[in-house]
Amino acid sequence: AINGGRLWDSLMGMAKIGATPKGGVCRLALTDLDKQSRDLFVAWCEAAGCTITVDAIGNIFARRPGRNNALPPILMGSHLDSQPTGGKFDGVYGVLAGLEVVRTLNDLNYQTEAPIEVVAWTNEEGSRFAPAMVASGVFAGTFDLEYGLSRKDLDGKTMGEELARIGYAGDAPIRGRDLGAYFEAHIEQGPILEAEDKTIGVVTDCQGQRWYEITFTGQEAHAGPTPMSRRRDALLGAARIVEAVNRIGLEHAPYACATVGLMQIHPNSRNVIPGRVFFTVDFRHPDDAVLAEMDAKLRNTVTRVAEDIGLETAFEQIWYYAPVKFDAGCVEAVRGAVAELGYSNRDMVSGAGHDACYLARVTPTSMIFIPCVDGISHNEIEHAHPEWCEAGCNVLLRAVVAKADA
Amino acid sequence: AINGGRLWDSLMGMAKIGATPKGGVCRLALTDLDKQSRDLFVAWCEAAGCTITVDAIGNIFARRPGRNNALPPILMGSHLDSQPTGGKFDGVYGVLAGLEVVRTLNDLNYQTEAPIEVVAWTNEEGSRFAPAMVASGVFAGTFDLEYGLSRKDLDGKTMGEELARIGYAGDAPIRGRDLGAYFEAHIEQGPILEAEDKTIGVVTDCQGQRWYEITFTGQEAHAGPTPMSRRRDALLGAARIVEAVNRIGLEHAPYACATVGLMQIHPNSRNVIPGRVFFTVDFRHPDDAVLAEMDAKLRNTVTRVAEDIGLETAFEQIWYYAPVKFDAGCVEAVRGAVAELGYSNRDMVSGAGHDACYLARVTPTSMIFIPCVDGISHNEIEHAHPEWCEAGCNVLLRAVVAKADA
Ligand SMILES: NC(=O)NCCC(=O)O
Ligand SMILES: NC(=O)NCCC(=O)O
Repeated sequence: AINGGRLWDSLMGMAKIGATPKGGVCRLALTDLDKQSRDLFVAWCEAAGCTITVDAIGNIFARRPGRNNALPPILMGSHLDSQPTGGKFDGVYGVLAGLEVVRTLNDLNYQTEAPIEVVAWTNEEGSRFAPAMVASGVFAGTFDLEYGLSRKDLDGKTMGEELARIGYAGDAPIRGRDLGAYFEAHIEQGPILEAEDKTIGVVTDCQGQRWYEITFTGQEAHAGPTPMSRRRDALLGAARIVEAVNRIGLEHAPYACATVGLMQIHPNSRNVIPGRVFFTVDFRHPDDAVLAEMDAKLRNTVTRVAEDIGLETAFEQIWYYAPVKFDAGCVEAVRGAVAELGYSNRDMVSGAGHDACYLARVTPTSMIFIPCVDGISHNEIEHAHPEWCEAGCNVLLRAVVAKADA
Repeated sequence: AINGGRLWDSLMGMAKIGATPKGGVCRLALTDLDKQSRDLFVAWCEAAGCTITVDAIGNIFARRPGRNNALPPILMGSHLDSQPTGGKFDGVYGVLAGLEVVRTLNDLNYQTEAPIEVVAWTNEEGSRFAPAMVASGVFAGTFDLEYGLSRKDLDGKTMGEELARIGYAGDAPIRGRDLGAYFEAHIEQGPILEAEDKTIGVVTDCQGQRWYEITFTGQEAHAGPTPMSRRRDALLGAARIVEAVNRIGLEHAPYACATVGLMQIHPNSRNVIPGRVFFTVDFRHPDDAVLAEMDAKLRNTVTRVAEDIGLETAFEQIWYYAPVKFDAGCVEAVRGAVAELGYSNRDMVSGAGHDACYLARVTPTSMIFIPCVDGISHNEIEHAHPEWCEAGCNVLLRAVVAKADA
């Protein structure tokens, strides 16, 4: 069994980097704080005897040799970056649970047959640089390296520049490695496990996603002497899409999720009719056909709203991935571990995207969920109890060892 | 008659300070660029023989003595600050038309009976610091000096700090001066004069305004695993108010104006349900009773929307002034000048707020409007033809001299 106290201490230690007043973290991808969290992770892994490599998109691999190092490694991990007002567990938990597995095997002096590796993927959140999971997507061959390195934040800085700046543009091969399997432990980020009083979610699927960027351009004009009838108000257009996105989500209840999370208004002055608004849409559904229906509704609504108000539209779907089915063998490894340990559990479809979704394209993959309090994530108050963290890590240990020794 | 070429050259010279790529200006109140425009105005006034004084809220007065300097001065002016994407005429035109009146009187070696003063009021736009016209409001005794100096921009900098920083916190008395009259020349900023092919607007009234600040607080949560039914989306609330504000404007057509110009979303991340949104509302109507009806509708809607979504609300009306009636004598002075000059004209109600609205509380006041192309203002493409600028300045000259010599 793993050392729950040590795992908790590591989580709380990492949470000091970028700690926010309300108890969360702000550690946006490839900032100085992200570099600090990477440095700490690397130091801990080296202290645990691992060898570190970093690839060209900044993914960090900490390798613990097996008895037979010609065998492909079993990977486990997640990400260290956070949302602007993120929590202490989202991502970090999966990385540090992987480290705790290594530390436990060290304590036990246990050498797996295949080597194992703990991975921290770059920019999983998709908050500073869109889309999410871009570096695991590059690793898995879904995106070109050039695409990954050229992702821009809202200030125009690229991932490539920022990786170089913080010293995490590595030279490890990014493609073509032979892999044994990938396991990712994560908080659920939703309310189901806690509501049903289950300790472990055996994740069988992940819902699909579509992300959009929309810019409406109308005409800036004076809020006082410009009659309502002459206005081309870009914010009125955006407001109608926010309402429509919410309605589309409700129309495909209970599984659909539909969100406008980001909006920038130009020139953003109290007495100027907004001339330009940039905003994003995030659609999710476990059924790809429904996701396509939601897409069609959005396109129709955007066209109609823009026509009604007289707006020019730039509309782009910037990200799409179809619902993911995890590997039956890996799911069974998790289910077996949970059964041995006797934890209450249920099968789950992940509502969030995870690096595991891209890894699933190149190696047998599955995930382990633990509950989080009130189902709240992407919020500074995100919380997971120590016993949940310990349980998920025990499942990870058994699933990984089972695969590595298979 | 004034020198239209010289006036135009001054307008174009001033427009170089803060010039934007699309032909407008960005010269927000109390920035380094605002300081540059003040310095240039002061230099021009001194070259025209005027004496400069600056009061504690940064209003600049350039005085040309009369034959009898015991008489209260006739003021004319407007403002030099602009919107973030403002034009070359809004405000600047009234200040430089005043300067052109002084230069013309110098050319003619004509001394008015009463002294005359050209004024540049601080922060008329209300874009960087809300509300608008705050410094003429302090001058007129509507606001305390402390209120004016403590206005904050979105970064938390105060007008007092910024005045001191750019060296325009003066020591001229801010209250209690005896004034003869105030005239303000301005572009219409709306479509009426151009549409009716009239050169001059004789401004008899100014519509009333109410400005609001609203913050909705819901709960940040993950856009993926958070079911629609569990959301408290602050942006959905704000979007409903944008739609309601537009509807309230339309319900009181054709005179009402209703605008949401500024909105800030928190944390503003694509895959986070917005937890907090701050936004503003700008209501205008020439009839105070209608403005009060609009106010009541807004309050009801905000309460209902917040209840429906489960949002906390902070709601504040931060600015209000009732419709203004300008002084009959000053309006007659303008009407007389227009008649002598033979310009096509019509009476008008100002849709925008102007420093004249506050000056009207302490001295006989009226305004002179000239058209602007397509009625567009608060936009980089704002334009007024040289012949319009010249005509308005000729009216200003005659009205001011008539009052100063009366
Ligand atoms: N796990 C997680 O929060 N991922 C971010 C990407 C997404 O929004 O699904
Ligand atoms: N003239 C002008 O643009 N004033 C700004 C204040 C207002 O919005 O009415």
